[in-house]
Amino acid sequence: MMRVAVAGASGYAGGEVVRLLLQHPELEVGALTASSNAGQPLGAVHAHLTPLADRVLEDTSADVLAGHDAVVLALPHGHSAALAAQLPDDVVVVDCGADFRLTDADRWTRFYDTPHAGSWPYGMPELPTAGGPQRAALAGATRIAVPGCYPTAVSLALAPGLTAGVIEPDDITVVAASGTSGAGRALKPHLLGAEVMGAMSPYGVGGVHRHTPEIEQNLTAAGAGPVTVSFTPTLAPMPRGILATCTARVRPGTTAAAVRRAWSDAYGEEPFVHLLPEGRWPSTGNVLGSNAVHVQVVLDERVGRVVAVAAVDNLTKGTAGAAVQCLNLALGLPETTGLPVAGVAP
Amino acid sequence: MMRVAVAGASGYAGGEVVRLLLQHPELEVGALTASSNAGQPLGAVHAHLTPLADRVLEDTSADVLAGHDAVVLALPHGHSAALAAQLPDDVVVVDCGADFRLTDADRWTRFYDTPHAGSWPYGMPELPTAGGPQRAALAGATRIAVPGCYPTAVSLALAPGLTAGVIEPDDITVVAASGTSGAGRALKPHLLGAEVMGAMSPYGVGGVHRHTPEIEQNLTAAGAGPVTVSFTPTLAPMPRGILATCTARVRPGTTAAAVRRAWSDAYGEEPFVHLLPEGRWPSTGNVLGSNAVHVQVVLDERVGRVVAVAAVDNLTKGTAGAAVQCLNLALGLPETTGLPVAGVAP
Amino acid sequence: MMRVAVAGASGYAGGEVVRLLLQHPELEVGALTASSNAGQPLGAVHAHLTPLADRVLEDTSADVLAGHDAVVLALPHGHSAALAAQLPDDVVVVDCGADFRLTDADRWTRFYDTPHAGSWPYGMPELPTAGGPQRAALAGATRIAVPGCYPTAVSLALAPGLTAGVIEPDDITVVAASGTSGAGRALKPHLLGAEVMGAMSPYGVGGVHRHTPEIEQNLTAAGAGPVTVSFTPTLAPMPRGILATCTARVRPGTTAAAVRRAWSDAYGEEPFVHLLPEGRWPSTGNVLGSNAVHVQVVLDERVGRVVAVAAVDNLTKGTAGAAVQCLNLALGLPETTGLPVAGVAP
Amino acid sequence: MMRVAVAGASGYAGGEVVRLLLQHPELEVGALTASSNAGQPLGAVHAHLTPLADRVLEDTSADVLAGHDAVVLALPHGHSAALAAQLPDDVVVVDCGADFRLTDADRWTRFYDTPHAGSWPYGMPELPTAGGPQRAALAGATRIAVPGCYPTAVSLALAPGLTAGVIEPDDITVVAASGTSGAGRALKPHLLGAEVMGAMSPYGVGGVHRHTPEIEQNLTAAGAGPVTVSFTPTLAPMPRGILATCTARVRPGTTAAAVRRAWSDAYGEEPFVHLLPEGRWPSTGNVLGSNAVHVQVVLDERVGRVVAVAAVDNLTKGTAGAAVQCLNLALGLPETTGLPVAGVAP
Repeated sequence: MMRVAVAGASGYAGGEVVRLLLQHPELEVGALTASSNAGQPLGAVHAHLTPLADRVLEDTSADVLAGHDAVVLALPHGHSAALAAQLPDDVVVVDCGADFRLTDADRWTRFYDTPHAGSWPYGMPELPTAGGPQRAALAGATRIAVPGCYPTAVSLALAPGLTAGVIEPDDITVVAASGTSGAGRALKPHLLGAEVMGAMSPYGVGGVHRHTPEIEQNLTAAGAGPVTVSFTPTLAPMPRGILATCTARVRPGTTAAAVRRAWSDAYGEEPFVHLLPEGRWPSTGNVLGSNAVHVQVVLDERVGRVVAVAAVDNLTKGTAGAAVQCLNLALGLPETTGLPVAGVAP
Repeated sequence: MMRVAVAGASGYAGGEVVRLLLQHPELEVGALTASSNAGQPLGAVHAHLTPLADRVLEDTSADVLAGHDAVVLALPHGHSAALAAQLPDDVVVVDCGADFRLTDADRWTRFYDTPHAGSWPYGMPELPTAGGPQRAALAGATRIAVPGCYPTAVSLALAPGLTAGVIEPDDITVVAASGTSGAGRALKPHLLGAEVMGAMSPYGVGGVHRHTPEIEQNLTAAGAGPVTVSFTPTLAPMPRGILATCTARVRPGTTAAAVRRAWSDAYGEEPFVHLLPEGRWPSTGNVLGSNAVHVQVVLDERVGRVVAVAAVDNLTKGTAGAAVQCLNLALGLPETTGLPVAGVAP
Repeated sequence: MMRVAVAGASGYAGGEVVRLLLQHPELEVGALTASSNAGQPLGAVHAHLTPLADRVLEDTSADVLAGHDAVVLALPHGHSAALAAQLPDDVVVVDCGADFRLTDADRWTRFYDTPHAGSWPYGMPELPTAGGPQRAALAGATRIAVPGCYPTAVSLALAPGLTAGVIEPDDITVVAASGTSGAGRALKPHLLGAEVMGAMSPYGVGGVHRHTPEIEQNLTAAGAGPVTVSFTPTLAPMPRGILATCTARVRPGTTAAAVRRAWSDAYGEEPFVHLLPEGRWPSTGNVLGSNAVHVQVVLDERVGRVVAVAAVDNLTKGTAGAAVQCLNLALGLPETTGLPVAGVAP
Repeated sequence: MMRVAVAGASGYAGGEVVRLLLQHPELEVGALTASSNAGQPLGAVHAHLTPLADRVLEDTSADVLAGHDAVVLALPHGHSAALAAQLPDDVVVVDCGADFRLTDADRWTRFYDTPHAGSWPYGMPELPTAGGPQRAALAGATRIAVPGCYPTAVSLALAPGLTAGVIEPDDITVVAASGTSGAGRALKPHLLGAEVMGAMSPYGVGGVHRHTPEIEQNLTAAGAGPVTVSFTPTLAPMPRGILATCTARVRPGTTAAAVRRAWSDAYGEEPFVHLLPEGRWPSTGNVLGSNAVHVQVVLDERVGRVVAVAAVDNLTKGTAGAAVQCLNLALGLPETTGLPVAGVAP
């Protein structure tokens, strides 16, 4: 068993990493750290992690995190770089935060308004790029940036159409619904249960959401030219899940069969990303708690647009599951080890 | 007091009409009819309509409906025409079904696959059209077609941009989330509570949803040219509510101020349609059970698209509230009489 | 029109009072005050109160509240007494807080740990007491204490059995489920949407919830002797609603018919409290947003216990609806004026 | 790997069995059968079981089920006996239905109204009985009756108090909330999403629910004398989970410490049943999708009652998880093999 420390274990992402490690046959839970919750038993902040309820959260520091085979960082944006710099180069470090996702410093600064920390290999193995799936960049990496939850759903929904050249890169629209755990554990009035149950509402409208440049970076890497996206996130009355509904103008002369072939070619061999049979559409309920991604696509010939939809669990494949998948790759384990593929439904 | 009969009172739409009539100071509940539920007390199918719990549902027939000042039809599609033909011309008939909404017989046939019954004045008073608000067509009408729920949200979200000429008519995308009451009371496995709670999923993807031609008809009436819409409805884990997120390419040279002005000009005087203050976005939770429509719009200059969002309660303003609003107009009452404007929140 | 000021209008209870006043034909919204939210437009804290979105919240002070026909206090516990003392005796003051509900100073101190402010007439008109319905104490009162939400549901569920002498007073158990708005707008982690959706959990177990003495006071007033209650509140994944499931040992020799008669005698003439037909059980969904109380009762002869269940909307009949009902009585209006009796369902 | 067939795989219970088998390191999914859904791919009825989406459901027959190491029956009540009789004695058969749970033929007939099929060893290993945990009856058994979901929660909540003799057996009250998957996949109007979201309601009130005799049988086995229970189930707006809130009169002279000791003695060594630290209460959200049972208990000295609460996932520990736990015991595997102990939260 290899030992994995989790920094920021008291948040939703950190808790999900621990949940997945508890089911993993080759990885063992090492130190668990927190900031304001340090000193508390894990059960006081994550009562669902029953087997480790009495484990005490330690202070987040390089000393506590040292001596593990791998470290998962699940910290607020901007806190990863300083900590990662203090960890030995041969320790695998997987960052669930945004700090090392963007390669373009200008875009980082425009959306995050802090200095750019640099970029690490991007931890979305299945992402179709002009040079093949992104997986190749991850084997043996010791630093990996875990993708954001929306970019996971949107990029996997659309990239096959760009690598295959069947859709245009410059007029993409995305409306994505997220469960409220996506907003984290911050105490804000609009996240109270009484406010969110029964309510759908958009936020970060008009291209200002921080996941926008990450989506565009991924889709541009697919190779059809610079991508721009009209991205509107919405908050949905459910604890978890992202449903990304994406449209793009189809290239002239493209047939419905060519569209379907582009997506089935991209994901035919993937263990976690599934193109559903024709006529069936993704539902967030079907991927709950799992590392699965359900995708479907159709050509609307009336309007000349492809509609591509993906469903993921924002905390599992959208964050912690991707982190464990990256750990598997970095540590030389089979990529799917320990990761649930069936959702908890109904 | 004028008396109003409701045909199809056992469905969700019919029940909502009765709920609103119970609060109306000038209208009184007359005969309530049903088909398979005829003979049952209203309380057995709508336990929330407490004051009329013992009222027995009658068979739907022209005889039962005769002798009222107005009749609201809340029947499955295709059942309104025959019944309406048997009602006197001077009785106000308001149809919540689709039968008389489309003016183009070809489009009707393509989407509904039955003969076209004709068209009645379209019951969306606030709809901006090239000739001014649609309201003018409704005063004194004795036959009115109540709009569909999605068309209400989408048309009110986007039409101001078309009448003002600030958006292009030919590349509009809409993703709309609906509460599950929008699917009616039909017993289908995917509508079971265990399936819908925690789950978002699309349906009718690719331009096949029957509300598509109605949306396009409304937006074309706004006057900027023939409109095509990529429309994707999604099912959201809430009982009621529609959130329509719409994007359209902005006309070259249009400023953010011009966009805002288009929408504020359209709705400044409307009692039910509210353009929210800048920075605040509609939520279905805020219009629950009310006839209010909350709208917001922003120009995303990076991608040259306007994002316009509207929230309505699909059963109130999206169906039964619109029906009562039409009754008010047809019967010569002030348009807002008896209609709730504040949502039930949180 | 009489003018009503609302102190604490930024909370859930205060917002619901305003919502009901907006529908009231004889009462008009006067000053709206808040503490930390003073200075903000109402729309920033209650976006659902569309018609008053631009109204600015004022500071809570006797000066601002003066000059109205009535004042509703919707303040945190402990804040009502000082403010009420500064208001003229002839202004009707209705307090939604707990301060003036308990007549016994010792019990107040034990559960609230602050000095007892005294007691006002208790605002539950339908409550069966040994001397008849509580209503008699309210006509013409100028100070009224609005009941708590749990005590409303529990007392109305059980009191008929005590006044009729068919149940024992000393072995009552109550398990009640509440929507999360019952916890108010306080920012606590366990009230976040992601935590409450999909989750039921008890709290305040073991007789420590502050509504316990109020329940016992009400049921003792019913006249069968001192009542003790095992009361367990639970938090349910819904925004609103209370379902109180109550059991009590039946008096020896009592028949099922006698049980039913006790309840139907108590509520046969009540406009808001409805004993459902046999075989139908209350659901919180059917009273949403209304002032209705649905009640059902059955004798379980196998175990010698009566099971009585009541459903209310905690914010409407459980708080703000009761406040308006009390205003009606105090101001000489018909008791039901302006209060919705049909729930917003489905 | 041992192979396990599942009869009734298209229902919620059968689907959950398959989900758990997919994560099990020693058990493999064998034949999957159904009745009306036979011939369909599994993905058409359980889209969440991604890895087996293309597996075709076979007809339920002894022939199809033969040749496996074990068979799990997840059939409607009354269908298990005939099928089980056709399976070889040395094949392990685990029945998720009620058919073989009750030992008393009279009680069976009174509640189920069909002939009594007999009884099998009762598959709740942790159940405290007068002779020690029920586990002893299960090792090596080839026929096991899986407990009902409510009886699992209620029995584990209360039995320690009866074996330890600290509570009275004859005045127990239980109010339990269940997620709507507990009602199965039957198409009934009151189970539609629009009806259940936002709504709590009781059903089967007055001792008529079929789980009542099973609860009483279990608690009587605990040894303090014949048990009677006032049992009220309620339907809660969540897909899964049971929260059982139970009260019982405490034996005279019993201290709070003695109460706590009774429960901690019973479950101190149990891998799935956890007595929470004092002050923390079970939540269904914390056991979602897991085989964990969270229990808490407190003595309310004011009223002389113990309040004991348990939370389980009705489909996992309440049905399919218990089935797999029984398979483990019957097949000689460690009892916890392959069963998740951490819930999927938030």
